[in-house]
Amino acid sequence: MKISQIGELALLEKIRHRFRTKQRNILLGIGDDAAVVKPSSNKLLFTTDMMVEGVHFDLSLISPSQLGFKLVSVNVSDIYAMGGSPLYMLLNLSAPKSTTVRFIDDLLQGIREALRHYSCSLIGGDISASSHNMISLSATLIGTVRKPLLRSGADIGDRIYVTGNLGDSSCGLAVLKRIGRQVSFLQSGSSVRVRRPASNLLPKLPWKVIEPLLRRHLLPEPRAPKGYAPHATAMIDISDGLLIDLSRLCDESNVGAKVYLDKIPLSPELKKTARHFRKSPISFALRGGEDYELLFTAPQGKKVNARYIGDIVRSERTLVNRSGGEKPFLAEGYQHFS
Amino acid sequence: MKISQIGELALLEKIRHRFRTKQRNILLGIGDDAAVVKPSSNKLLFTTDMMVEGVHFDLSLISPSQLGFKLVSVNVSDIYAMGGSPLYMLLNLSAPKSTTVRFIDDLLQGIREALRHYSCSLIGGDISASSHNMISLSATLIGTVRKPLLRSGADIGDRIYVTGNLGDSSCGLAVLKRIGRQVSFLQSGSSVRVRRPASNLLPKLPWKVIEPLLRRHLLPEPRAPKGYAPHATAMIDISDGLLIDLSRLCDESNVGAKVYLDKIPLSPELKKTARHFRKSPISFALRGGEDYELLFTAPQGKKVNARYIGDIVRSERTLVNRSGGEKPFLAEGYQHFS
Repeated sequence: MKISQIGELALLEKIRHRFRTKQRNILLGIGDDAAVVKPSSNKLLFTTDMMVEGVHFDLSLISPSQLGFKLVSVNVSDIYAMGGSPLYMLLNLSAPKSTTVRFIDDLLQGIREALRHYSCSLIGGDISASSHNMISLSATLIGTVRKPLLRSGADIGDRIYVTGNLGDSSCGLAVLKRIGRQVSFLQSGSSVRVRRPASNLLPKLPWKVIEPLLRRHLLPEPRAPKGYAPHATAMIDISDGLLIDLSRLCDESNVGAKVYLDKIPLSPELKKTARHFRKSPISFALRGGEDYELLFTAPQGKKVNARYIGDIVRSERTLVNRSGGEKPFLAEGYQHFS
Repeated sequence: MKISQIGELALLEKIRHRFRTKQRNILLGIGDDAAVVKPSSNKLLFTTDMMVEGVHFDLSLISPSQLGFKLVSVNVSDIYAMGGSPLYMLLNLSAPKSTTVRFIDDLLQGIREALRHYSCSLIGGDISASSHNMISLSATLIGTVRKPLLRSGADIGDRIYVTGNLGDSSCGLAVLKRIGRQVSFLQSGSSVRVRRPASNLLPKLPWKVIEPLLRRHLLPEPRAPKGYAPHATAMIDISDGLLIDLSRLCDESNVGAKVYLDKIPLSPELKKTARHFRKSPISFALRGGEDYELLFTAPQGKKVNARYIGDIVRSERTLVNRSGGEKPFLAEGYQHFS
């Protein structure tokens, strides 16, 4: 059935019913002109992110429920990158009339699973037809934080850390493009169980190698800041790529950075797959986006449970190789309109 | 110059510079992963609205600055409809690479004028390329309210009021389609001065007749709730049309409504123009959208400075004509996907 057969009101009713919420601080959720919320005594965080078909996703490669899960995750990542916790979400969806109700149901299912996973509630939104044959989504997330971690707090002498392996997501996208169709995972509650396909999707690259890469790309789970925040002086999430996001942090802090190439954490799956593709794993790690790991700085001497990859310096921005050779880096990574 | 020539970072920088804000409660505006705001002691309101090219607007008929102004206005209308005041806005914009920098500048100018007009600050957003040749905008507005006015508070015996003339905006759209091109107004600060065109745009319909209709459609200014809120029991803004929005209020309040056709306020310009188009002015008023007047209910006997158009009754929903004849009405007005 197409959504044109059920209409806007029925679609709204469906969403309202599905995301009914009972949380003490939500005085009014979906269904009126605006949602009403009782403010907490902490500071509030606001962020918004779009996902546009043909730019951020390709429906031949990502399923609607994966798309829904990912939309929430990329927004949660920005709240985490401030050291905060997500609370509420607003959803905007524009879709062509020919979209099936099944598609919308699956999309909402993915959104619902993610919201449950991150303990966040949908409190409002807007839906609209789309004039072109294209789906476009955006979410606004409201979070709370006691002490916000800005991009601008890095100091000369601070160490640079990342919270996990880099490059997996963009390598996962390369694998996915090679496979050329949707890959299904079994999601259930907050845990994501993976269904092993009947046969290998790519000859010479076994499922157990490509599965973590695909999962990082299709069902990213941003790194929560708890445990890293106490000592951090500046923080950002890696969404567009290490080099571009580190450059943003340096710009705001008005400092430079030295990154030690051999310290950047790479997964064995990335190394194996990159070798198969005859590409350098480090280039996925430096320029690939959507890892949703945290990149942060902390003073030397603090005990930090994350991977130390570089140092904040006065002004130059360089990559240092194993033998100590340095070369400058630019803010390379995903940029719209270019 | 195209935005593809300046790129995403320069575009973000432009927006950040243009919307630099110094407000006591905004601890951090545009430029980090999320904005940081000090919550007020009042309740917070959240609303979001999209505007999609080819669905909500046609760029051959509306200028980019009018579009920007209107985007803010339609969102402010939802905050007003809760009895609240707008505080902060987040903006999402997706545009094709071929969009000119001039277009973006004009759009931002309209947004800026509207934000100033409504005493509201831009604190964040997201920009993205668009895969199809289509511009899509959305805004999320955060407001504050002491006592929120819901759709659900209407009681049997309450009177139904509207805050101004209905039908002007949809009739303005009909005029605009007849003209077939953009109409320019001079905007300056919060006041909108209108430039009289050199010659009449439509023979037989003088500029002074069509100007207020066009302005209502292109540069709507939602009605602020102050003055109406104290006695109101339920409130909604008329964005999709009187009948559909009144039906929403009745649905939420679980009541019926009687609307007296001869009490619905119609402007002389609407009457004149509808006659010229051989259409009934009342059909613009009942089913036309985007008037952004408030529709509210208040107990009988309260002195209310608005137009009394009907009564809340137990369950039937009817239109009553001059001679007392009643006929049921349906939730007719703009609906997506149908």
